[in-house]
Amino acid sequence: MEPTKFVLGDEHIPQSWYNIVPDLPFALEPPLDPATREPVGPEAFAPIFPRAIIEQEVTAESRVPIPEEVRRIYALWRPTPLFRARRLERLLDTPARIYYKYEGVSPTGSHKPNTAVPQAYYNREEGVRRLTTETGAGQWGSSLAFACRQMGLECTVYMVRVSYDQKPYRRIMMQTYGAEVHASPTDITQAGRKILEEHPDSPGSLGIAISEAVEDAVGSEEAKYSLGSVLNHVLLHQTVIGQEAIEQMELAGEYPDVVVGCAGGGSNFGGIAFPFLRENLVNGRDTRFIAVEPASCPTLTKGRFTYDFGDTAGTTPLMKMYTLGHSFVPAGIHAGGLRYHGDSPILSALVHEGLVEARAYLQNETFEAGVAFARAEGIVPAPEVNHAIKAAMDLALEAREAGEERVILFNMCGHGHFDLSAYERYLAGALPDLELSQEEIDRALQELPA
Amino acid sequence: MEPTKFVLGDEHIPQSWYNIVPDLPFALEPPLDPATREPVGPEAFAPIFPRAIIEQEVTAESRVPIPEEVRRIYALWRPTPLFRARRLERLLDTPARIYYKYEGVSPTGSHKPNTAVPQAYYNREEGVRRLTTETGAGQWGSSLAFACRQMGLECTVYMVRVSYDQKPYRRIMMQTYGAEVHASPTDITQAGRKILEEHPDSPGSLGIAISEAVEDAVGSEEAKYSLGSVLNHVLLHQTVIGQEAIEQMELAGEYPDVVVGCAGGGSNFGGIAFPFLRENLVNGRDTRFIAVEPASCPTLTKGRFTYDFGDTAGTTPLMKMYTLGHSFVPAGIHAGGLRYHGDSPILSALVHEGLVEARAYLQNETFEAGVAFARAEGIVPAPEVNHAIKAAMDLALEAREAGEERVILFNMCGHGHFDLSAYERYLAGALPDLELSQEEIDRALQELPA
Repeated sequence: MEPTKFVLGDEHIPQSWYNIVPDLPFALEPPLDPATREPVGPEAFAPIFPRAIIEQEVTAESRVPIPEEVRRIYALWRPTPLFRARRLERLLDTPARIYYKYEGVSPTGSHKPNTAVPQAYYNREEGVRRLTTETGAGQWGSSLAFACRQMGLECTVYMVRVSYDQKPYRRIMMQTYGAEVHASPTDITQAGRKILEEHPDSPGSLGIAISEAVEDAVGSEEAKYSLGSVLNHVLLHQTVIGQEAIEQMELAGEYPDVVVGCAGGGSNFGGIAFPFLRENLVNGRDTRFIAVEPASCPTLTKGRFTYDFGDTAGTTPLMKMYTLGHSFVPAGIHAGGLRYHGDSPILSALVHEGLVEARAYLQNETFEAGVAFARAEGIVPAPEVNHAIKAAMDLALEAREAGEERVILFNMCGHGHFDLSAYERYLAGALPDLELSQEEIDRALQELPA
Repeated sequence: MEPTKFVLGDEHIPQSWYNIVPDLPFALEPPLDPATREPVGPEAFAPIFPRAIIEQEVTAESRVPIPEEVRRIYALWRPTPLFRARRLERLLDTPARIYYKYEGVSPTGSHKPNTAVPQAYYNREEGVRRLTTETGAGQWGSSLAFACRQMGLECTVYMVRVSYDQKPYRRIMMQTYGAEVHASPTDITQAGRKILEEHPDSPGSLGIAISEAVEDAVGSEEAKYSLGSVLNHVLLHQTVIGQEAIEQMELAGEYPDVVVGCAGGGSNFGGIAFPFLRENLVNGRDTRFIAVEPASCPTLTKGRFTYDFGDTAGTTPLMKMYTLGHSFVPAGIHAGGLRYHGDSPILSALVHEGLVEARAYLQNETFEAGVAFARAEGIVPAPEVNHAIKAAMDLALEAREAGEERVILFNMCGHGHFDLSAYERYLAGALPDLELSQEEIDRALQELPA
């Protein structure tokens, strides 16, 4: 029987995270103070992040050792399996060989715990007793709640009210792990009260929830704040995905011609791609890399590569990245994890320099791909992943056209067990396709900081 | 780093299922015709099951080869991981070593596809084009929908109306796999119409849904019926769990002193226990076996070992088993998979002969155990599994009392991602404890067939 999947024992959990920054053939531009336009130093982050995380954010080392305690918690689900999608290949009648790395086996069903656990670890090591964060539909919040429980930390999650009310399952998961979950905006922060005064029925937004979580942490002796994507240290932690995948592809006797991932803030993409990209940069490989995003939030494909705020309220340092403008509010697509106005500065620079390609797809075509995948391979994917699946399927069809045996690897960063209402709407033909027009993009970009 | 889990590659998927019947130190009593009280032959099942399944139901062979095509589909999730619950051990401060086999990594999140796939396979091999079945909350229905899609069969699921309305996620999962799902009672079967005439607002029941699914299959040239628990062939298919666990325990350098599983119809319990029980029967081991059930449906602990119908409507052959009477309607606990008036005839006989022990627990104490497990080990368990966890924790505490290093293995037959509303009710203190009184049991047992 030819193998369908490639599994590794606990001893193959990587010993270090891979930092791509020193291997880049260009320099990253630093974050700037919005008032002075001067580069901000690491100390600007001290009120919200612990020292070790700030060091990782700016480190010049290629390898950052993973603490043993973190590896022991990783062992609850890592190494994750690598699958060969033989049934999908047959469906597409393609000479391409399609592989996917499956992060949905984590306790919370996505790749998010890969960074939640070390973030909780370093905070606890430095005496922090509570972490605050924001969450939309709850993938990140539930992962941080899990990680905090493992480390004996308290966890306070500001959950966007509309999700709090309409998607109770992830909220309950956070509470099962012992986290305190607030519907944001709340009346316990200034930021929240200000919104509620003006809009008592506010449905909330990620921007508002971030403001509340940061204010809570900054105003508290024992608390820090935790972020689940975008920043360098988050992408660093996610590189366990790609490092394992390299070893598993070796087991399969293969090396990918193309690596695909969906991109919202960029962390699952960076996680699978950067260890393979290193092979291009350091060892002369020539793999293609494709980041896939929604046409309704086409940051990498139609945004501008410039300095912008990381948050909606405009309180963070300015970061050089592809952005649609920090006040851009993406349409309410079901791939909630891809609804971000900007993108990781590292990934943005890689796209700008032409080392990573970007593609955008409409909502319905991604769900069509996701349903085909579920019927062929069994796993119902998260809506975010459907973007990567659509691109992988297109690449496999291109390989068929070309009559070439290409090897395609994509990151299946989570399952869709909490997203089935989106599938119901798709199957009922009720999902809108929300492509952003050039006019809307131009209007959004007018809001960029001067 | 000491290993947390034990994984096996695809080549370790068992080559055969293990049939315990020929190794039993007693004879199983045959199913009887309810009218004549004569044993029914295999031909009685021909209208609803294919020949190969009927043969497996009555086979005297110890080993039944697993078809290669079934093994290739098993490879989408099998072998499942075996974990050592080191964090739970620390929490309990016990010298016991606790292991669990985790079936939640299957596409539908439970052990059910282990039998759904071969059932769909044998039906397709014999020219069947459609399978019908019933489902309550949907674990079984979604597994059969997945299996039918893999085999290119149509799938018709009669889903109890109250679940259809209140628990849409598993319904959508079935539809995503392409199954047709009806809220039962329907107006497309005689059985359904009869109920609807008398009770237009009927919430449905598993008994009604079974009647509809069987009627649909019997009245259709191209369709057969499929059952997800209780019968011998279902337990047979589930023995892949225990066979893998034996190999994984060897990897861990261990052998269990006690094996624990929850029991509703008996299939996940039989799946993990029978391969180990064989070691007792054939190779002189002396492992204990404990089947755990809810105090609100205490079939094995307080039912009678006698002949009864398998279904509520009283249409099946009579089976010798522990039963509370076929017309007994269990309370609406959240462990829907454990709400069955009877139990597997094989498991019932094993309990009756003293080879397997049985325990019953109240709802809140099982959820208390499940939340402790989720906080320690990360995975939120299905409510059914919480019964096994509670027993395993009690056994670990008993080991601490005795100061003995016992090895405990339990079957974690599914995750709780679709059951979080039950956790919400538990955390809010709103779950009732529904212990069945002796008077209620006596009353239910009066309904046994003469």
